[in-house]
This record gives sequence, C-alpha cells and structure tokens, in this order.
Amino acid sequence: MTTRPGPRERLLEAARDLTYRRGMHVGVDAILSAADVARRSLYQHFGGKDGLVAESLRSPAALNRLREVMDRAGDDPAERVLAAFDDLERITTDPEFHGCRYTAAELSLTDPGHPAHAVVRAYKDDLRAVFAAELTRLGHPDPVVGATQLVVLVDGVLAYAVTRPDAHPARAARSLAELVVGPPHPA
Amino acid sequence: MTTRPGPRERLLEAARDLTYRRGMHVGVDAILSAADVARRSLYQHFGGKDGLVAESLRSPAALNRLREVMDRAGDDPAERVLAAFDDLERITTDPEFHGCRYTAAELSLTDPGHPAHAVVRAYKDDLRAVFAAELTRLGHPDPVVGATQLVVLVDGVLAYAVTRPDAHPARAARSLAELVVGPPHPA
Repeated sequence: MTTRPGPRERLLEAARDLTYRRGMHVGVDAILSAADVARRSLYQHFGGKDGLVAESLRSPAALNRLREVMDRAGDDPAERVLAAFDDLERITTDPEFHGCRYTAAELSLTDPGHPAHAVVRAYKDDLRAVFAAELTRLGHPDPVVGATQLVVLVDGVLAYAVTRPDAHPARAARSLAELVVGPPHPA
Repeated sequence: MTTRPGPRERLLEAARDLTYRRGMHVGVDAILSAADVARRSLYQHFGGKDGLVAESLRSPAALNRLREVMDRAGDDPAERVLAAFDDLERITTDPEFHGCRYTAAELSLTDPGHPAHAVVRAYKDDLRAVFAAELTRLGHPDPVVGATQLVVLVDGVLAYAVTRPDAHPARAARSLAELVVGPPHPA
C-alpha cells in the first residue's frame, strides 16, 4: 500500500501531465481537478499557475533519464553521447511523444517575465554541461562549442519529430553527433 | 498612397503578428481589434480562429527569405546551404526574434485535429526539399537524409536560440552544416 502524495506533489504531477499533453495553456481548473486539490492550495504552495508551471519544469526527470542512458552505455565518452541519440529515437517514436516540454514552455509562454524561462535556461545549461563534460574527457578541442552543437541536435530532433517522426530525425542527428565526438577511439 | 488591404488580409497580418509575439493562444478579440475587422468577417473568411491561424502559417515568407538568401550566395550548392545558417545567426540575434512560428504551432496547438498541423508539415517538407535539391546537385550520397540533418539543425538553432541566443547556436550549427555539404569544391 502506498501513501497518497500530498497536495503539492499532486499539483506538480497534474501540471506536468496536463501541460505536456494539452499544452502550457491548459486551464487552472483542469489542473486542480486532476490533482484533486482546492484552489487555495495552489496559491499556498506556488502562488498561482505560473509558479506551479515553472516548478513543474524543475523536475530532474529528463536529465536523470539522460544520465541513466549514458551510464548504461559504459565509460567511453563518445559511446555515452551517442547513446543519448539512440534514446532520442525511442523517445520520438513513442506514440505518447508530444515534443520537448522545455521548448514548448519557451514558445508558449511569451511573457518574458514568466518564471518558467529561468527554469528552462537552467535545464538547457545543465544539458550542455553534461555534454561538455563528456567532450572534455574526449579531448575535444572546444567542448563548449561541441556541446552547443549537441544541444542544437537534441532540440532539433525533438522539434522536427513532432511534425515528422517518420523522418527519424534522431537517426539523422546521430550521424552528425558521431562527427562531433570524432572517430572511435582505439580500445 | 497605398490602398488599405481588405479584411481578409488584415486578419492574416494581425494573426501572424500577434501569434508570433504573444503566442498561439492570443485571444480572438485581440486579433479582431488589431485587424479592425468584425467577428463576422473572421467566420466568413476563415470559419473561425483555427482556420485563420492555419492560413496565417501558409505564408511563403520564410521560404522566400531562404531562397533569396541562397540566391544571393551564388550558384555553388554548398555556399547556398551555408548561407542559410549565416542568415539564421542574423535571425536569432535579432531582439525581435521569438522562435520558430511553425514549431510554436506544433507545440502549442495540442489538438491533433487542428488545421495548422498540415500547414506546418507542408512547410517542413518544403524546407527539406529545398535542402535536398542543393545536396542532390552536390552529389551527396543520400540527399534526403542530409536534408533531414539540415532541417534538424535549423529547428534546433531556432529552438535553442530562444533560450540562449548568447550561445550562438547558428554559428555552432554552421560548422556541422559544413560537414553535411562536404569539403569545399575546387573553384
């Protein structure tokens, strides 16, 4: 038997689910109803919908998945980076895939003062840092530019795959990622 | 003296402008007010907001700009493709840049039945075809996969640049595009 999560966790979970499936502009009432939480609780915990949406993006889920995929690929930095693109092929061909929630937040929440933007920036900076660390271990001549290229590829795959999953952008991007990480190392 | 455009054109222009600056969920009233058009006119011309938004995306502006940029770069297919990435650097460092309107439509309009999706698909297919034509002229071994890589780069630059224009993703992507088009040709 599991304990039911408290209102704060239920709100975060409902916001994550509904903004992903129905868009950032999903109504507050739908979130409250899915979370089975009173409006007052939303304001107490997050100060309102904007705060809830921002906080729901702060989840470590995406980076945790990336780190797990990399760790399963072993210790070679090139293999670890390429494993991320193999995982993108799985992610983007899943029928439940609806695009990158971070890019969706950036494009849907056009108020530059929305608190979600700082969370997205932190996420993409973390993503780039994860790649830069692998490229540094590889002896890449410019790990930050290389990592920027990898983030461009990730963002591009996630954007294009919403429109054309059948173009398999993750596979096409993997070939470019191979060029970023350079030729295979001798064992 | 120029003639004032008719209600249909004014609606399209207002929708293009407001959905870009304020997001796909901008209210119908704001569009009607900016267009100075009666609600009845919206329904007569487009059947409603969804039809207007879809039609506003059908603009040839983005592909026309791409073709002009390529034509200014001359006849060499590699130079023509790379010119697109130089232009992306200009686009994404413009303070008025708010991201790719096609990706925004895909991510904001989560109803799969929304008529905008077919327009976005046609746009991205056209974009890929423009690149594939250049790669075919270059003798690229697989122009469709190469063009898919270029669309991933374009989509990735436009997505990442919303968050981090200061990372200059277009410059980073240009180096990868150079690898797609191969080494420079002898003059």
